[in-house]
Amino acid sequence: MTTVINRDSALAMLGATLDAIPMTRAMQVELSACDASTFTLTAPLAPNVNDKGCAFGGSLASVLTLSGWGLVAMHVAALGLKCDIFVQDSAIKYLAPVWTDIVATATLATGESWESFAASLRSRGKGRLRLSCSVMLADNSAACALDARFVAIVRSDEETT
Amino acid sequence: MTTVINRDSALAMLGATLDAIPMTRAMQVELSACDASTFTLTAPLAPNVNDKGCAFGGSLASVLTLSGWGLVAMHVAALGLKCDIFVQDSAIKYLAPVWTDIVATATLATGESWESFAASLRSRGKGRLRLSCSVMLADNSAACALDARFVAIVRSDEETT
Repeated sequence: MTTVINRDSALAMLGATLDAIPMTRAMQVELSACDASTFTLTAPLAPNVNDKGCAFGGSLASVLTLSGWGLVAMHVAALGLKCDIFVQDSAIKYLAPVWTDIVATATLATGESWESFAASLRSRGKGRLRLSCSVMLADNSAACALDARFVAIVRSDEETT
Repeated sequence: MTTVINRDSALAMLGATLDAIPMTRAMQVELSACDASTFTLTAPLAPNVNDKGCAFGGSLASVLTLSGWGLVAMHVAALGLKCDIFVQDSAIKYLAPVWTDIVATATLATGESWESFAASLRSRGKGRLRLSCSVMLADNSAACALDARFVAIVRSDEETT
């Protein structure tokens, strides 16, 4: 079965996983939008404030990383593969405080290719990929930028039905 | 008043701040140990699991970053200063899954100096510092390593009483 990458398929495939993680429930993380090139999660400010009243850095890092994981998961599903997907490492810059609800969007990092990732998954059962994830302010400047490397490893029961 | 850096003073000074952040309450973050060179926080696995049953990456990143913030905050207090303390950027490596409660310890990064940090705070009202924070496994290997840069800015009402 081919998975088309859109919000509905993302909700059907990943919603249960997000619900299974106590901290994503506590952060009230929700899927906002998904297509083949972007994956956007939101979380309200109230449960994610720090002692200064703006967004807690741990929540920002978590929602950003989850947005990247979601984008990789949707591409893996669209390839008809079942994979375990991990974040290997990441670098984050906290550029400005976030006084609003958190909106985190993941896209492919410069120089990366979904085609190479897919080819590696098919030939070696493993693929690596870097994503750029960001929380933007109303003026379209980045409040928080995360560069993360993910690895996907094909499961032995790899073909979806 | 001079603050001696130990577990009791850390609890008195930082406990209320940790309690004021909804996500640190949800993660059940607690102070474990503190002295002049290390700051250790713990969080039980149960509220911090991911869908695979090991520690959620967002919780690991959060507890690690908070351990660094705590160590900086205690040194600032020991200098008799009041500062706003922020994490500017960080890099994290997820090296192995964590199947136990989270224990995160912050120490000064190689090449950094508390003396230079204090001198900069006193002369310029601002200091930067890199810390190395890690979650260790039972065999004493690192499961997760975070390198973070903090900035402290002296408040106008700088001298504690």
